[in-house]
Amino acid sequence: MNIAILLYDRLTALDAIGPYEVLSRLPDATVTFVAEQPGPKRTDTDRLALVADASLAELAAPDIVLVPGGPGQKALMDGGPVHDWLRAAHETSTWTTSVCTGSLVLAAAGLLAGKQATSHWLALEELGRLGADAVGGRVVFDGKIVTAAGVSAGIDMALALAARVANDQVAQAIQLGIEYDPQPPFDAGSPQRAPAEIVAALRARARSFS
Amino acid sequence: MNIAILLYDRLTALDAIGPYEVLSRLPDATVTFVAEQPGPKRTDTDRLALVADASLAELAAPDIVLVPGGPGQKALMDGGPVHDWLRAAHETSTWTTSVCTGSLVLAAAGLLAGKQATSHWLALEELGRLGADAVGGRVVFDGKIVTAAGVSAGIDMALALAARVANDQVAQAIQLGIEYDPQPPFDAGSPQRAPAEIVAALRARARSFS
Repeated sequence: MNIAILLYDRLTALDAIGPYEVLSRLPDATVTFVAEQPGPKRTDTDRLALVADASLAELAAPDIVLVPGGPGQKALMDGGPVHDWLRAAHETSTWTTSVCTGSLVLAAAGLLAGKQATSHWLALEELGRLGADAVGGRVVFDGKIVTAAGVSAGIDMALALAARVANDQVAQAIQLGIEYDPQPPFDAGSPQRAPAEIVAALRARARSFS
Repeated sequence: MNIAILLYDRLTALDAIGPYEVLSRLPDATVTFVAEQPGPKRTDTDRLALVADASLAELAAPDIVLVPGGPGQKALMDGGPVHDWLRAAHETSTWTTSVCTGSLVLAAAGLLAGKQATSHWLALEELGRLGADAVGGRVVFDGKIVTAAGVSAGIDMALALAARVANDQVAQAIQLGIEYDPQPPFDAGSPQRAPAEIVAALRARARSFS
């Protein structure tokens, strides 16, 4: 099973690495990081590079496609080789997936028209504008399209996907292997439960997505 | 505030990237990925490289030191430049931290003698053998030493640390920014609650740590 994770400049690292850490532990799975131009891609903080080993053409028909989000998503909204690759890969993929604002790229490529999907909570409006049924939620399955909410939600998505691709026992063994027994020190991870002034502050400084 | 995250061949990516994603969002923080030899480091799956931008000498006195775990930890147990760097950095650091089997490296460098600490659940015995008080737990503070349990626990540790370094509001804003509202599809992330046969299977195929 071939799993392609898209890299690009100014992506958010955890969007890609959370699911990678889960999916790479699936039996008979091979994860490949792909990019329009292989090589190091600087993340959104500019303090780290993740290396893409392969070009899009080298992974033309992956079984699972994963598009992470991050500020660099904006540069991928207007067509181009990534859209062409996504549309072609989606024709034969078993699962086409995204984390965070990666769903905006899927939508811009025309893959989410009328589909139930989610994104980072700050990007749900934009997702709707792009033609998706932006239902929100942490992990959303609609047929073979699976989208996750912001950044860390990719871990939950990948575990849910692992259970579908393999079975519950395999997913549970992966969860235990990465000791994913989350104990956040605060209950502030969603706009519904974070302090209102913190939600407002993040809304006020939200970047534009298009 | 300078934060140094150690990279080395065959590390587990999420051990480093989880805390990076949190700590890099601290106000006035600069995260630098360091290694004995700068350049790309292949992770434990051999399917990804993370790039270390700086040498150990370039970050001789970071405010926060973070050592991730992974199979490559074994090659760091017998002294050498990483131990020398850790011991020197620990003298002036505000926080010396680890994720997963990174605590075994701290212990081998002599920094955990008699200190309360944790590690990946499969490595707790080894941590005790190395002289630490291996109390277990998801995130353990003992003075300025902070250790986290396996892989994904680095996210929880980094949020707890963000609250100490800045304050609760800053940590909560970071948590909301990365939408860390974990909803794992199974309750199998700890050996206490995972199905017994899955715990046994992982124990049976556990790697050696020394």
